[in-house]
Amino acid sequence: MESLINCTEEQQPSSVLTNSWYNQEACRSQKAKCAGGFVLVHAGAGYHSESKAKEYKHVCKRACQRAVDQLRAGALAVEAATAALVELEDSPFTNAGMGSNLNLSGEIECDASIMDGKSLHFGAVGAISGIKNPVLVASCLLTEAQKGKLSAGRIPPCFLVGRGAHDWAVGHGIPPCPSEKMATKFSLSAYKRNKRKMELAEKMDTGQNQAKKRRQSSENENGSGCLDTVGAVVVDSEGNVAAAVSSGGLAMKHPGRVGQASHYGCGCWAENACNMNSYSTAVSTSGCGEHLIRTMLARECSAAMQSEDAHQALLEAMQNKFISSPFLASEDRVLGGVIVLRCCRCVEAQPSPNIQAAMVEFLWSHTTESMCVGYMSAQDSKAKTHISRLPPGTVPGQSLAIEGGVCRLMGMVD
Amino acid sequence: MESLINCTEEQQPSSVLTNSWYNQEACRSQKAKCAGGFVLVHAGAGYHSESKAKEYKHVCKRACQRAVDQLRAGALAVEAATAALVELEDSPFTNAGMGSNLNLSGEIECDASIMDGKSLHFGAVGAISGIKNPVLVASCLLTEAQKGKLSAGRIPPCFLVGRGAHDWAVGHGIPPCPSEKMATKFSLSAYKRNKRKMELAEKMDTGQNQAKKRRQSSENENGSGCLDTVGAVVVDSEGNVAAAVSSGGLAMKHPGRVGQASHYGCGCWAENACNMNSYSTAVSTSGCGEHLIRTMLARECSAAMQSEDAHQALLEAMQNKFISSPFLASEDRVLGGVIVLRCCRCVEAQPSPNIQAAMVEFLWSHTTESMCVGYMSAQDSKAKTHISRLPPGTVPGQSLAIEGGVCRLMGMVD
Repeated sequence: MESLINCTEEQQPSSVLTNSWYNQEACRSQKAKCAGGFVLVHAGAGYHSESKAKEYKHVCKRACQRAVDQLRAGALAVEAATAALVELEDSPFTNAGMGSNLNLSGEIECDASIMDGKSLHFGAVGAISGIKNPVLVASCLLTEAQKGKLSAGRIPPCFLVGRGAHDWAVGHGIPPCPSEKMATKFSLSAYKRNKRKMELAEKMDTGQNQAKKRRQSSENENGSGCLDTVGAVVVDSEGNVAAAVSSGGLAMKHPGRVGQASHYGCGCWAENACNMNSYSTAVSTSGCGEHLIRTMLARECSAAMQSEDAHQALLEAMQNKFISSPFLASEDRVLGGVIVLRCCRCVEAQPSPNIQAAMVEFLWSHTTESMCVGYMSAQDSKAKTHISRLPPGTVPGQSLAIEGGVCRLMGMVD
Repeated sequence: MESLINCTEEQQPSSVLTNSWYNQEACRSQKAKCAGGFVLVHAGAGYHSESKAKEYKHVCKRACQRAVDQLRAGALAVEAATAALVELEDSPFTNAGMGSNLNLSGEIECDASIMDGKSLHFGAVGAISGIKNPVLVASCLLTEAQKGKLSAGRIPPCFLVGRGAHDWAVGHGIPPCPSEKMATKFSLSAYKRNKRKMELAEKMDTGQNQAKKRRQSSENENGSGCLDTVGAVVVDSEGNVAAAVSSGGLAMKHPGRVGQASHYGCGCWAENACNMNSYSTAVSTSGCGEHLIRTMLARECSAAMQSEDAHQALLEAMQNKFISSPFLASEDRVLGGVIVLRCCRCVEAQPSPNIQAAMVEFLWSHTTESMCVGYMSAQDSKAKTHISRLPPGTVPGQSLAIEGGVCRLMGMVD
């Protein structure tokens, strides 16, 4: 049996993290028990206006609370991550589920995926319409795949798209939701505004001129626009990790366009510690889907997290595997963000033989103007939230911000 | 300018390759000029009956010829790979394009993708209906993305699915094809047979029993069934590599199911040599999409190909990253196959200062019962084809076959 004793948040988020807390004598080992568990969520890497800061923070807070409620009730990391995502999707302020960006045809098509670090199973949906919580479909696909083969030995799908995904969801008890109910006053007015901009741009750039302009264009909707894919990374009391991501995709995307939120290795990644990996890691990404797909950012960050110094490893991954990635050599601005969590058992810091301490390190980094995050351990009474912003004078897509903290979780071992 | 002088195929395919030809003093360097170029294709990892062997070999031969025609006309690797795939898709004997497997609803939904090792751009379509050659859409997406941003700074998509993908294709000049014209007598009768099997299996396994049986089932349609995703890997005369893949997906899949053929890093991978990589590599995978997605097999094999000994590296990748992958720990049979190509410049073997020799190593490996391949250099008069089979007595999904060869291409350097 394991009971909660203490959780110390050792450092407030800081943009200039010293490495001191990374140098602790943390014994990296197989999966660590993480008394009660911990969740880190984000409401998007993009631009968060001061006027809406309160709303973004509120939804992050509620998402953390939902996940922690699950963790306290003994839920696994995947269940807690799903619960957090449902809350983030339900907010009309995020670009996921309700209030998602509208595509070129004025419709909502969502992407979502989830990964379980314990079973390493993955579930994803792409370009799904008429479902309020796409993450529930991804989560259900993961659960169904874990049950093994279908009738006549058929292999269960891990990734469904479009109408087929919608019908599968409804067939598995997830209620449909009329698309018009998912659009908000804000998303509809943004659509009209974007449409006018597009028409104007196309009128100005005709024929030869247009083709030439295409290559030169750097001023773009997404450069400082609101991208706002949402995500969560969780470790449960048993030390299992999970990661989830959900997105309405880029505004004015072509119907059928699928972004990183559905893409294995790109939108989220979770791997429990094993013989090969000292740390359990979970990552969720946000930003421009095409950039995040082509750099496979979630998996790259997860792999980097096996280094000694998590902060330095994430900094290097964001710089070398994202901003300066050879896969994005032709891009002038590389827009995205990640939340990362890793944990291990701290043997040398155990106060007594029957108390086990686990250390959860959590970080976020982004090249977008801002990123709104929230985090909470099962021992906290409420979540902490924060809007991280690029330092003044830096250029989105070319610079990055990186922040984080550490949480020590102690539990009684029976 | 570079002209064709000589191409020597140094070794016939063999299931027990000695390592001698891998130990040649090949100078690994930046991208090697590959006089004329080379193509390796396959018509699927699955089961190829002796009765249809001739057909499978014929289609591989034609696909090689199509690619080589392009290479001789100065086409880039991506264009040659696309041409090979079109031929493979057009065959009613392969599970891609015409004659694709039917899904649960009796419809054809195809997946395809292509990657350019030079620009590292990627294009993919998933669950697309009513398009005879899905690879043309993937290829067109890649080309369009290379042109830069769309009007109003919108980022062009790299992955489209379903109806949206179909409409985008038609809007870009790819003609629609009535779905009923894509089904063949064979695919329709297989659908009816599979449907009966499924209904029978579901009648036998009801309620509790069914749930229990699901986990135990190992006898499956796909264990020895025909999977037959097709693919090609190409190096052009400039030494650029490309890889492409196309599939009708698993028989009786759920509508909307997307397999590895659309998935970045899973269905195909191509990377020109660079500061980080000594070799240019291209990989295309085939088999059970869910297994190939979760192991990211194309990218894993590509990374492995940077080792000294290509044969040993592929053997280990197939064993450790596929058959024994921790990502597929719960699977009793892991079904798939790959074709791999890598090339480098051989400085020490240059016959004179103005002649440059490049070495192309090509391999295939599969855990399925068989795999039909074809290969050809631009200097060959016709393609060679071969059906590789698992050694007698071995179990599909648990054992593997690996074979390959090497081709030296010599070109005049001006």
